[in-house]
Amino acid sequence: MSIKVIAFDADDTLWINEPYFRETEAEFCQLMENYLPQHTVARELLQTEIKNLSLYGYGIKGFMLSMIETALTISNKTIDISAVEKIIEYGKALLARPIEVLDGVPDVLSALRDNYRLVVATKGDLLDQERKLRNSGILHYFHHVEVMSDKQEADYRKLLKHLDIVPEQFLMIGNSLKSDVLPVLGIGGSAIHIPYHITWEHEHVDVHIDNPNFRQVEHISEVLPLLYAPSM
Amino acid sequence: MSIKVIAFDADDTLWINEPYFRETEAEFCQLMENYLPQHTVARELLQTEIKNLSLYGYGIKGFMLSMIETALTISNKTIDISAVEKIIEYGKALLARPIEVLDGVPDVLSALRDNYRLVVATKGDLLDQERKLRNSGILHYFHHVEVMSDKQEADYRKLLKHLDIVPEQFLMIGNSLKSDVLPVLGIGGSAIHIPYHITWEHEHVDVHIDNPNFRQVEHISEVLPLLYAPSM
Repeated sequence: MSIKVIAFDADDTLWINEPYFRETEAEFCQLMENYLPQHTVARELLQTEIKNLSLYGYGIKGFMLSMIETALTISNKTIDISAVEKIIEYGKALLARPIEVLDGVPDVLSALRDNYRLVVATKGDLLDQERKLRNSGILHYFHHVEVMSDKQEADYRKLLKHLDIVPEQFLMIGNSLKSDVLPVLGIGGSAIHIPYHITWEHEHVDVHIDNPNFRQVEHISEVLPLLYAPSM
Repeated sequence: MSIKVIAFDADDTLWINEPYFRETEAEFCQLMENYLPQHTVARELLQTEIKNLSLYGYGIKGFMLSMIETALTISNKTIDISAVEKIIEYGKALLARPIEVLDGVPDVLSALRDNYRLVVATKGDLLDQERKLRNSGILHYFHHVEVMSDKQEADYRKLLKHLDIVPEQFLMIGNSLKSDVLPVLGIGGSAIHIPYHITWEHEHVDVHIDNPNFRQVEHISEVLPLLYAPSM
């Protein structure tokens, strides 16, 4: 295998993201607990998010709009308008949160940069992902940043065409089996899965992967021996 | 001059956009007219949008959130919650609106495609701009689509690096002097301005441009004689 380009997912692969969403969701569920038990609020919110995904896409602004819509639905339009103000505050705080790069990430990028072209391949709001990368302190390791509206096979094919490489030269590293691993293996590329302790429910899949181009590791630092050993 | 790449702005250059925003804004101003005269509502909304621009970026979702925030401010949090529901409906309708390609656009693209690399360079929500382009029927004319978080000189420099060309090989065509013309001329590229009858106030600039790399035309079809005449 002759990997030329290594693409990293961003949220929960390079830096912490999902726990912040979950904290905001917890605040929202508390705000709504006069109407429904908190876990039911969370379920209603998830359904609204999935319903709106094709219109809003991924990212915090869509999340904010879905929280507002859920508040209206759950309260049957009886909720006080100040709840909407609170939701906007929650969302703005989430947008402005400082970036915490995950342990080991700069060392791994530094060890790989001379032998591979490193890129970021992420979903989400364009402006928001650019802001996070700028504030992360690791932007200089990357040759290119691709913010994708989705991560399906067709999206990866477009990315490879754009990077001017064949699938055999492409390795994707990320925390989502559904978005970072399965579609990449599907088009003939390689993938390394680094599970994160929290995954958004919509990204959950339950599969056993038996593919020579696939590896799973516990920590990003384990990527190095895989790449620099003769077997991969 | 040896232009290799021609980049087109999308909203109000390739298809109708700003009039739809203005229609939605008019609905919103009507919704709020119990609190303030409509033109004052519009002014408050613009101020909220500009204040939120660094956090939300360009696009419909940020516009929706700014309308909701303006409704709270203007009513001093006394407005009925059903107004928030209406604003979400307005925004979703705007997101789902069919695309109307501007008169003459397909002919011009068809006439240019064999001699130049054509790209789209647009601001806005990634998912939303991709959806519009997919539904426009003109996607196949373009070699590349670049959704930019902003259109300042640094953003255009990045685009040219990405396209692997020098500024002398780059021509930008668009309706905004501020976003499509001035920064491109600033880095040494060429620009053609096609004014549109409605421009978002935040894009307004009042300048006289005296630059040999600049032209202004009334209609996109006038681009062809400019490009195919020996003077440019």
